[in-house]
Amino acid sequence: MNVVALDAMGGDFGPPITVEAAVMAVADGIDVILVGDEDILGAELHRWGDGAMRLRVVHAADAVAMDAPGTDARRDRGGTSLRVAAELVKRGEAQAMVSMGNTGAAMTTALAVLGRLPSVERPALGVVLPGAPAGILLLDAGANAEVRSSHLVQFAHLAAAYMKAVQRVPVPRVALLSIGEEPSKGSSIVVQAHRVLAEDEALQFIGNLEGRDLLSGKADVVVTDGFTGNVAVKLVEGLTELLFGQIRQAVIDSLDASAVEALLPALAPIAAQFHAEHYGAVPLLGVDGCVFVGHGRSDAPTVVKAIRVAHEACERGMLAALTASLRSVPGQPLG
Amino acid sequence: MNVVALDAMGGDFGPPITVEAAVMAVADGIDVILVGDEDILGAELHRWGDGAMRLRVVHAADAVAMDAPGTDARRDRGGTSLRVAAELVKRGEAQAMVSMGNTGAAMTTALAVLGRLPSVERPALGVVLPGAPAGILLLDAGANAEVRSSHLVQFAHLAAAYMKAVQRVPVPRVALLSIGEEPSKGSSIVVQAHRVLAEDEALQFIGNLEGRDLLSGKADVVVTDGFTGNVAVKLVEGLTELLFGQIRQAVIDSLDASAVEALLPALAPIAAQFHAEHYGAVPLLGVDGCVFVGHGRSDAPTVVKAIRVAHEACERGMLAALTASLRSVPGQPLG
Repeated sequence: MNVVALDAMGGDFGPPITVEAAVMAVADGIDVILVGDEDILGAELHRWGDGAMRLRVVHAADAVAMDAPGTDARRDRGGTSLRVAAELVKRGEAQAMVSMGNTGAAMTTALAVLGRLPSVERPALGVVLPGAPAGILLLDAGANAEVRSSHLVQFAHLAAAYMKAVQRVPVPRVALLSIGEEPSKGSSIVVQAHRVLAEDEALQFIGNLEGRDLLSGKADVVVTDGFTGNVAVKLVEGLTELLFGQIRQAVIDSLDASAVEALLPALAPIAAQFHAEHYGAVPLLGVDGCVFVGHGRSDAPTVVKAIRVAHEACERGMLAALTASLRSVPGQPLG
Repeated sequence: MNVVALDAMGGDFGPPITVEAAVMAVADGIDVILVGDEDILGAELHRWGDGAMRLRVVHAADAVAMDAPGTDARRDRGGTSLRVAAELVKRGEAQAMVSMGNTGAAMTTALAVLGRLPSVERPALGVVLPGAPAGILLLDAGANAEVRSSHLVQFAHLAAAYMKAVQRVPVPRVALLSIGEEPSKGSSIVVQAHRVLAEDEALQFIGNLEGRDLLSGKADVVVTDGFTGNVAVKLVEGLTELLFGQIRQAVIDSLDASAVEALLPALAPIAAQFHAEHYGAVPLLGVDGCVFVGHGRSDAPTVVKAIRVAHEACERGMLAALTASLRSVPGQPLG
């Protein structure tokens, strides 16, 4: 039975939302441990009736502020809910942890408590984008502003193993984000990573992918540095919001009320697929544990989705798959 | 009188489109020199009647293939239309040049023939994005896959001077694309450029901008390396196409024919603002000449727009403004 430790103090809305989500997830048959201030959590649980009071709480005196830098987490030697959740995973009392928001602190804490998988120099943040049936996994979406080519090669293996084991894509197509399809295009780091990946028989490497094809579905995995990846992911969010604002206005200005009413519900899911919350939570790949981070502004159903995503990743053997795939990564850093 | 040299062999469709565009631009009162194979251009001009036959043609025996790498252009010592057009600018017979497509070759040729402006280490490609009344100038959009912080600082000055002189933004707000708004966020190159720009009194530097705010209109100029910039620009194109494909289908599926007919024309300009052709042509900033590059797939009205953009930039004193602004750039490369 896989247990999910939920950082109940995380997220923009904190315990009122995380506790509601935990109650819902437990009702769905997922075993959740709430981690946070036991008085606050107890009071929240009380609102959900006697059944909810049986939900397990592990106390943590502190919480990481949503806007605290990752470096603060590094100084945290003890009592934050994030750290206590990671320690539950470390001790095997939970098999996965979920925190909503403050990705930097989650990464730092997970890394400090759980360590890295063998052969991984730098863990990275995966983000699932729409465009392919099982989604497109972009890695790194922001954990590493600077990378070496060896990191990109490791990202490729981590991401492909994740898509295979968790999203059940039999042979994930792996691409390298660049500024031209030719192997010679891009920064020297990208060109070098291309050279290594092109000879990597453990991967289905399809070459470079340009920005315009990121969401085209040509690749299941898109590998990039955390700077470019973060800009891309946030640009997708920003552009989608901007466009739908303009489109909504054009719809209202051009159509009568009944036509507006017929159309807007059909447009909503097109916009929703690009919301950061759409996938519930995204994995930190390369740490030695199933660690998922969701968007701070998530509502309770989204936190439930986050818990479910983390639980499913455990059930599908995420860590064992990642570990196995890393055995075929060239051992030496490549510069 | 500012004269525009048009690389008439450029673009996906070549002389049939470029000659038509030149004829239209001349009718608008812009002086254009067509550069390319004189037999082919003569035959095209013939189709537009006697008036068109007075349009000046400068012969160039060769053309750069649309897919030729920039390095081929470096070996070109003579006869391509691109090179002949640049030489017309060098000799002062034209004040601007325009080529549709093959940005790499245009950059290489312009640089070889015209050289750089003082204090510029690396010329860069500007792309105008929607989001502010005069557009948002993103620099670099792909000329330099790797940069130093000193390059970013120079890009900031070039781009701000362009927006001020050509787009008449009185005090352009300059931002640095990064993965967090804090000065400490981003790669070490971005962090270092931030430090320099924050103390640069010649610029209205507003700090870092995240991907989600690239098109928000918070900045008139967004500075980045050519890798990130190229990925971002192409992602905007790709995502817009993807979204409008899905939206069009939802509109057709949800509305009756008359409502569809009422709505689609209102949506078209929303999509069009994100097309690469929307601004006609974009500037190569930092070369010692007014050099503009348009999209290869442009039709004749778009090539006219490209000619007009280049002509207007000359009229508004683009080069003098760039040169003046570069005087306030810190002189030493910053690493």
